[in-house]
Formats: sequence, structure tokens, C-alpha cells
Amino acid sequence: MPSTHQSPLQPGSTIGILGGGQLGRMLNLAAARLGFHCHIFDPEWASPAAKVAQFETNAKYEDINAVLNFAKTCDIVTYEFENVPSLTAKTAGSAAPLHPGARALNVAQDRLTEKNFIQNEAKVPVALFQSVDSVHELRRAIKKLGLPAVLKTRRMGYDGKGQFILNSEEDIEPAWAAMQNAPAILEQFVDFKREVSVIAARSTTGEIAAYPLIENQHKNHILHTSTSPTTGDDGRAQALAIQIMNSLSYVGVMATEFFELHDGSLVVNEIAPRVHNSGHWTQNAGCVDQFELHIRAIAGWPLGKTQPKHKMQMTNLIGNDINSLPIYAKEKDCFIHLYGKKDIKAGRKMGHINRIIV
Amino acid sequence: MPSTHQSPLQPGSTIGILGGGQLGRMLNLAAARLGFHCHIFDPEWASPAAKVAQFETNAKYEDINAVLNFAKTCDIVTYEFENVPSLTAKTAGSAAPLHPGARALNVAQDRLTEKNFIQNEAKVPVALFQSVDSVHELRRAIKKLGLPAVLKTRRMGYDGKGQFILNSEEDIEPAWAAMQNAPAILEQFVDFKREVSVIAARSTTGEIAAYPLIENQHKNHILHTSTSPTTGDDGRAQALAIQIMNSLSYVGVMATEFFELHDGSLVVNEIAPRVHNSGHWTQNAGCVDQFELHIRAIAGWPLGKTQPKHKMQMTNLIGNDINSLPIYAKEKDCFIHLYGKKDIKAGRKMGHINRIIV
Repeated sequence: MPSTHQSPLQPGSTIGILGGGQLGRMLNLAAARLGFHCHIFDPEWASPAAKVAQFETNAKYEDINAVLNFAKTCDIVTYEFENVPSLTAKTAGSAAPLHPGARALNVAQDRLTEKNFIQNEAKVPVALFQSVDSVHELRRAIKKLGLPAVLKTRRMGYDGKGQFILNSEEDIEPAWAAMQNAPAILEQFVDFKREVSVIAARSTTGEIAAYPLIENQHKNHILHTSTSPTTGDDGRAQALAIQIMNSLSYVGVMATEFFELHDGSLVVNEIAPRVHNSGHWTQNAGCVDQFELHIRAIAGWPLGKTQPKHKMQMTNLIGNDINSLPIYAKEKDCFIHLYGKKDIKAGRKMGHINRIIV
Repeated sequence: MPSTHQSPLQPGSTIGILGGGQLGRMLNLAAARLGFHCHIFDPEWASPAAKVAQFETNAKYEDINAVLNFAKTCDIVTYEFENVPSLTAKTAGSAAPLHPGARALNVAQDRLTEKNFIQNEAKVPVALFQSVDSVHELRRAIKKLGLPAVLKTRRMGYDGKGQFILNSEEDIEPAWAAMQNAPAILEQFVDFKREVSVIAARSTTGEIAAYPLIENQHKNHILHTSTSPTTGDDGRAQALAIQIMNSLSYVGVMATEFFELHDGSLVVNEIAPRVHNSGHWTQNAGCVDQFELHIRAIAGWPLGKTQPKHKMQMTNLIGNDINSLPIYAKEKDCFIHLYGKKDIKAGRKMGHINRIIV
């Protein structure tokens, strides 16, 4: 498929961002460095992103008039989360170029569509999977894939929510009950060595850039640390991510999460059509960071260099972790990034620190 | 003098900034990273800083009610330029802690007060100088200091404005005419090898931090490049800057500009009680940058580390320089920082680039 070409966006132009969380905030800060103005669309007033934006619109994503009026003020529109309703995306895209495009959203919003696309169109390996819409189909899927296996809702899961690991036949009933009749997908349990990811970008001109492989450690199903560069097959991981981006004629930063198997081979777990928590370390790595990379990609700028000068480790500050700030503030080679969220809540991402390791 | 102590300012607090130019903008971006909100006071709507701030007040600096109402919303107040009127500073300081304090402003606003303070109180070398309030005093001052010499207005000069170099007796009348009867100061012409500067900070707890020596090159009296680290007596320059800060019980980042003489010795040219154009390179040097350093200092946080990982060079983008952006965007180890200014004008600072040299 041909790339979407457009002239590079001039400084002073306005970039619309659907979603006002920390990803939107850091996109906004990067856009500001390049002389762009941002317009944040978020249901809540004074979201983390809107606090540092020139313009904000507060309305429901389903308020199509509000979305249209918002997009009319923007030279291009992007988003910070993949669950933008499709009518919202379509409406925004009718008034301004939307990057990444509607296809990327469509693929990323539904695990079944996503797996089918990655396996059959992009020709990139994923774990074996089966569509499951009833407890009957679940039993049949288990016969095909064996146990253990993972049952996941097709839509709206994140940070381990909407997932159920089945170890024995006895888990079938409670697993299906946990889905609350939502369409689901059963995935073969992958006996993986590590979870790794690649952050890469494709611009409106088709230019490609990718960071080295990232190793991700989770705690309570929430990303805890990301370390990069790491051992492993950088070239292969980047090539697979690029294959997916090219198959989608993708524009912007995309995250590809992989399971690394014991033999070193890679299967895709999922993709995120946006900047990603596992790419935050790039902010202090001595190269263009993932937020600026996304802005450059959607603005049609040269992507710049993505080769880090240092080995980095990002650690999320979840809930009360933020109380250790005075310690981090004294630490050498430790960089603090907070999101301006008002209340500390258990499990809430309050900020992160990036450490230069070498 | 004892330090001003206060508890560290908590994320979520509001920092007021008097002045909405690029320095205020970059202070704002750094404050946001630490989870602070900013409130910008600037006469103009949508100043470069206000574009990335949560709150803005637009009023004249002389509008004391507006200044008071502004300061009441802030947990602390700082400024991005040294010509804040003293009543404005006093009013803001009556409603919230003002850092750096009124004394620093008083000293930095008047070249005569500044030189007297640096020489007689801080005991730091400056070029020989004489107060000049009339053409008669100018002739008398020239007898004492000799020619060449530099006549400067005591107040409001920057980027070479309000300065006149006298080479012969014939220059006396036009030089004095150029002052338009403003109180002035005659400085002995210093035959210097280089202009260098030090960016250093002192926090509310009295903690001190300093970056290595910076070499500054000017073009048309406007800073063109700053390079650091550089050869020269880092330790001596830092010690002199710290001596000045301690003498003022200073809180915040201060820039000290020096003439480096042919024997390597240093005399102070001037001080700026704020973040400074010659410190912009710190943004990509792999350490706490000058903007974050200022926020940490005034917020009573640990200052963090100021030792750069790389040799850096900052180049200002003045007026049409910004048209070379597509070239800079492709360059390795080159970081772009634009100020979001609407119109390109000759001599206007539109942005800067930071290059990693080594």
C-alpha cells in the first residue's frame, strides 16, 4: 500500500490529542519543544495533559459535535489510547488527518482482529488462539490448544484486567463467568523466558525508525521496569515490528510486545498503536525520545536518531512509590518524570524515573 | 546571613512565574516534569510560557492588584527576567515566598549597585568602573580609567543595547547623547581572551550546585553559541559564582558572566538572577538541567547532579535561522528546542539547538 504523503507540519501548527492522561501529557511536552501547540480532548477538566496544553475541550468521546469542533481547530489529530470509539475517530478524521489511522485502531481494539491481522496479513508469529463466544466454544478451544491457556476479553483489557489463566478443567466455569458474556479469545499459554518489546515509528513519508529491544518486568500485572538495550535478537524484533507497521501503512509510534521463548524466538503478544510505557526510558537516553518521535512521524518531519547513548532503566512510580521522591531526587543519573495527578491511589501510575545504567 | 529554610514543596503545588518568554516556558516544562503546576504572569495573552502553563494572568507588571491576586494563587513565586519592577516583586513577595529575593533583583537591575556589591561585599573582581551622571562626570571618569572604555546605562540594557564603546575623546559627546541622560556607568575596557560564564544554584536549604565553565560566542551582540565543558579554571569560576550567591543568601539559579583575561584570570562582567541562555545546553547533557535545577532550588528539593555526561554546544536560532530546521531535524546528536513564538523577526530568539559534541 502506498504511504500517505503530506508536507511537513510547520511549527505553530496545532496538534489535537484524544485523551489527556500521562501519555498525552508527555506527547504535549515533546510537541511544545518542536514549537507545536496542542489541543487536548478529554472528558475531565485539567487532565494531566491539559495542564500543559494551550487548548482543551472537555466532552464525552461520544459527543460527536464536540469531537468535530475540536478536530476543526487542529492541523492533525492523534490519540494516546487505543480504545477511542470508532465513530469518534471517524469524526475527527473527517476534519483533520488522523494518525495513526482508523485501521490501526480497528486492529488494536479487538484481540481477535489483532491476532488474525498479525498472523495472516502481516505474517508475523503470534501464540495459537481461538475465538470464544460461549462456554461451549471455550471447551472446544481448550481441546484444540490444551491447558494451561489464557482466556482474554476481546476488547478493553489492560494491566492484566479481563484475563483469566486456566490450568485445569475446573477453571472453565469460573473463567467464563469472569468474562461476563463478553466476546473472548483463548490463547495457548506460552512458556516464555522474558517479555520484551520494540518501540518503532513510521512517518507520513514512510521513513522508519526503531529503538533497541526492551526487557519488561511486571509487578501485580503492571509494568514495573523496562530496560534497554538488552540481550536478544534486536534485528529480528525490529524487523517484525516494521513488518506490522508496513502492513498497516502505519503512521506514528507503535509498540510491539513479544514473548521471548526459551530458544530466543519471538511471538507477538500484542501491539499498541501509540507511545508506550515501555518506551519512557528514551526520554533520557541521549536520542530523540518516543514522544518526539511520534510527533515527528505524524508531522511528516525527519524522524531523527533513535540510537541511545546509554543503557537505561525505567521504573514506574505506582501509588505510594511517589513518597520515595526525596531519595530519587538525590540519586545520580536518575531522572524524575511526574504526571501531575492530584490523588495518590493504589495501582495508579503517578510518574516514573529513568536511570542511566551504563 | 542565615539561609531561608522551608519544607520541600510538594508535587501538585503551584509555582508562579513573572514573565512569559522562553525562559519562563522552559521553567514551566521542567516544573511540569516534577509534578508542579505553573501560573504565568505576563502582560500578553498566550505568551510562550503560558502556552504550556495551567494558569495565566494577563496584566501590566504595575497592576499591583493583579500581581497580588496572582501571587495569592501560588505557593512560591519566581521570575524569568531581572527587570521586574521592585514594587511588583515586593507585592508578590508579600503573598508568597519570592525566589530569588528582592535583594538579588535590586543588585541585578542597576549596574552601579551590581558592581559595588560584587566588588565590595562579595569581594569578587570586576572591571574598574565609575558612576557617570553627566558629560562632565564622563570626562572625569575617562581621566581615571583611560580609553578605550565602555559607557553603559545603569538600567535595562541587554544584548548590547544601551552600550557605547569610547575609543577617543571625540566619542564623548555622541556616547553621552546615546545615553539620553539616563544614569550610566563607565567601565574600563577589558582586553579579554574569551567570554565565559558559570551557571550555579543555591537552594532554600543552602545547598550549592554548579555546572562546568561555559565558553560563549556572540554575533551582532547576541549570544550565538555556548560550549561546555571548556578549557579554563572551572574551580575558580565556580568559587567566585558561589561567593556571590552566598553573599546574597541567594535562592535559585544564577548566571555569572566573566571576562577571561589573557593570563587566564577572571573578572565578572555581570550577573543574571535567573536561568540564562548560556545554560540551555544542560537540557541534553545527561544531568539535571538548569531549568529543573532552578525549580528544585526554589522548591527546597535536593539539587541533584550537575556533572554533564557529554561535551555540549548550544546554538541560538535567531530570526530566519529557524528555516534550517529540516537540516537540524536529520542531524545526529542534535536536539531541537523551539519557543512557540508566532512571528519570525530579525534578531528574535526563536529557539535553539543543543549538540552533543563528544
